[in-house]
Amino acid sequence: MRGIMTKGFVTGAVQPMVWAGDCLRLLDQRVLPHEERWLECRGAGDVARAIHDMAVRGAPAIGIAAGYGMALALRGDPGSYDAAEAVLAKSRPTAVNLRWVLERLRRLKDRSAAAVLAEARRIHEEDLAQNRRMAQFGAALLPRGARVLTHCNTGALATGGHGTALGVIRTAHAQGRIAQVFATETRPWLQGARLTAWELQKENIPARLIADGAAAWLMARHDIDWVIVGADRIAANGDTANKIGTYALAVAAARHGVKFMVVAPTSSFDPRCARGADIHIEERAALELTEFRGTLVAPANVDAFNPVFDVTPAGLITALVCEEGVIRKPSVAAIRGVLGRPTKKAKKGSDPFFTPAWKRVRKARK
Amino acid sequence: MRGIMTKGFVTGAVQPMVWAGDCLRLLDQRVLPHEERWLECRGAGDVARAIHDMAVRGAPAIGIAAGYGMALALRGDPGSYDAAEAVLAKSRPTAVNLRWVLERLRRLKDRSAAAVLAEARRIHEEDLAQNRRMAQFGAALLPRGARVLTHCNTGALATGGHGTALGVIRTAHAQGRIAQVFATETRPWLQGARLTAWELQKENIPARLIADGAAAWLMARHDIDWVIVGADRIAANGDTANKIGTYALAVAAARHGVKFMVVAPTSSFDPRCARGADIHIEERAALELTEFRGTLVAPANVDAFNPVFDVTPAGLITALVCEEGVIRKPSVAAIRGVLGRPTKKAKKGSDPFFTPAWKRVRKARK
Repeated sequence: MRGIMTKGFVTGAVQPMVWAGDCLRLLDQRVLPHEERWLECRGAGDVARAIHDMAVRGAPAIGIAAGYGMALALRGDPGSYDAAEAVLAKSRPTAVNLRWVLERLRRLKDRSAAAVLAEARRIHEEDLAQNRRMAQFGAALLPRGARVLTHCNTGALATGGHGTALGVIRTAHAQGRIAQVFATETRPWLQGARLTAWELQKENIPARLIADGAAAWLMARHDIDWVIVGADRIAANGDTANKIGTYALAVAAARHGVKFMVVAPTSSFDPRCARGADIHIEERAALELTEFRGTLVAPANVDAFNPVFDVTPAGLITALVCEEGVIRKPSVAAIRGVLGRPTKKAKKGSDPFFTPAWKRVRKARK
Repeated sequence: MRGIMTKGFVTGAVQPMVWAGDCLRLLDQRVLPHEERWLECRGAGDVARAIHDMAVRGAPAIGIAAGYGMALALRGDPGSYDAAEAVLAKSRPTAVNLRWVLERLRRLKDRSAAAVLAEARRIHEEDLAQNRRMAQFGAALLPRGARVLTHCNTGALATGGHGTALGVIRTAHAQGRIAQVFATETRPWLQGARLTAWELQKENIPARLIADGAAAWLMARHDIDWVIVGADRIAANGDTANKIGTYALAVAAARHGVKFMVVAPTSSFDPRCARGADIHIEERAALELTEFRGTLVAPANVDAFNPVFDVTPAGLITALVCEEGVIRKPSVAAIRGVLGRPTKKAKKGSDPFFTPAWKRVRKARK
C-alpha cells in the first residue's frame, strides 16, 4: 500500500501536517509545488500564524491544525487554555471547521494537555476516516475508464490526508476506474495548477491541466463523464456553495449530460441555511486578480470583482456524497433520508452538525 | 471628439500602430499594460519579427502591419517584393488576415512602393471604417444602462484602431448606453486583464475585471444584459470559432436568458466551412498554462491541454454583427440574407471573402 505510517494511522502519500511529538509539522502550501518546505509549530501562536498566512488551508485541515495547536499550548503552559483558544479562533475567523474543533475541545470534561492532544488526534483520524468512506461511496458511482474533471484543491492538502472530491478520484484510481483526470487551474488562486496537479502527479494519476474556460469545450467534445467537486457549505435543500467557477461547470455539465458529484463531510451540511440564496458569498480583494506573486498583471488601479464562492443549485447536482452515503437528486427529503432530521438543538444553532442519523453512526463506531 | 489625427484619418485614443513616413511604429503588446513601448520597424524583417514575437497581435492588426511591411521593403529596395512577401507570409502562418492582405497586394497592377503603401493605408482605413460601422450596428442593439461582459481583447489593439466587440462597447459608451463592463481576464494569455482592462481604463469606461470562472455566477445574479465577443472564423451556418472560454460564456448566457452578440468583419466569414465541426481548433503548448512570465506555476512536467479556440454553435448566438449589418438568429439563410451567396470563385477558394453583396458594397464605396 502506498502511504506512510504516522503515529498509528495510515495517511496517503501527500499530507498537509504531521504531529511530531513535540511539534506540529505543516507542509507550507504557499510555496508548493516548487518547494516542499515544512514549518515546525511549537505553540498555538505558531499554528495561528500558519493558518492566518495560509501555509495551511482547506477548512478541514485548518480545523485539525487548530486542535494540535491547543495541545501544543497546554503542553507548554497548562494555564494557557483560554489565551490559546482566543488566538487560534481569530486566526481565520470565517473557517467553520476551526470554530467547530475549538467548540468540540471546549466540551471535553478533561481539558488537560494529554486529553486535548488525544481529542485532536481523534479529530484528525475521524476526518481521514470520513474521507475514505466518502471516497468509497463516490468511487462506486464511476464507470471503469472514467474521464473526470475536478476544480480547486480538495485533496489530502485540504483535509486530514486523503481528500473529499480528490479523495474520490484517488480511490477510484486505485480501483482502476480512472482513465483521465482534467484539473482546472482555478483562478485566481490557482489551487488546481499549484496543488491539485501536484497531488495528482505525486500519485501517478493521469492528469491534464486546463484553463477554467476550457472545461465546457471539453464537455462538448465528449471528453468528460463526471465533474467531481467539494463544497464549502451545503444548504438544507442541497444548494451548494463552493469555489468560484463551480457553478459554471455545473451549468455546462447539465447542458452536455455530464454527471455532477459534490463530495463533502456531513459537517459541511448546514441545516440552518434553507437554500443557496441564504448563503453569504465572500468577496476578496481585487489584488488576487490584478497581481501575480506581487507583480501587477492588469493596469494599476483597475477595478475587479472577486467573489470567492458561487452557489450551484441542487437541481444541477447528480449526487451529494458524504461519509453517511450517497444522496441522489438532492432535496430536503433526499438529504433527510440519508442524514435524518436536524435536532432542535441544531435548529437553534447550538450544535448545527448534530442529527439523529449522525448520532447513530457515531455511537455505532464507538 | 476623443482621438488623434494620423495622416488623414481619425483613430481612437488607443491604437496598435502608426505609419510614421519612414517607419511603422508598433505599440509592443508584450509589455502592456505596464509599459507603453513603441517599436520602430524599418523593413519587412522588422515587421515579420514583431508579428512572430506577438508585439502586434489580433488578426486584423497583423494583416495591416504586414501591408505596411511590404511598403517599407519596397521603399528600401524595389526589387525585394518576393522576398519581403515570403518573410511576412511565414511570420504567423495561421493568421488568415495576413494572407488575405498579401494576396490583395499581389493583385495590384502597379506594385511600386507608392502604390503598395497607398493600398496598405487603404486596408488600414477600411478596417477602421468597418469597425466603426459594426460598432454602430452593435451599439444600437443595446439598451440604455446596459451591463455587458466581454472576453479576450477585441479592441483597438487587435484591429486598425477601434475594435470589433470592444468597438461596439466603445461606441455604445459614447452613446451613453453602457452602465458597466465586465472583462474576463481570459486565461491563459490574460488578454482581458492586460489589454482589454487597459483599453477600457484609457477610455474611462466603467470596467471590472473578473476571473473567467465568475462569469456564469454574474449572470445568475442578474448582473449581465449582453455578452459581446469577437470571432476568429464564422462558418456558413453561423457557428463561430473564438477564443477559448467563449463557448462556456454562451452556454451560461443561454441558461440565464442573457443575449449573446458576436462582432466580426465579413472577412471573418468563411463560406468554405459548412459548420463549426469543420473548423480546425489549434492547440498550443502546455507552457502557456504552466508558466507565468517564465516562472513555473504548476509542477514541472505536468501535462496540460491547451486548446486556443472553441466553437459556439449558431443556436446560442442572438446576433452576428458585421459591417454589412445585423444577422439575427444566425443560419445559412440569415447570413445569405445580409451577405448574399458566395460566388463560384469563393467556393473554389480563390477568393473566399468575395460575395455579390460585399462586391456591391465595395463598389458603392469607391
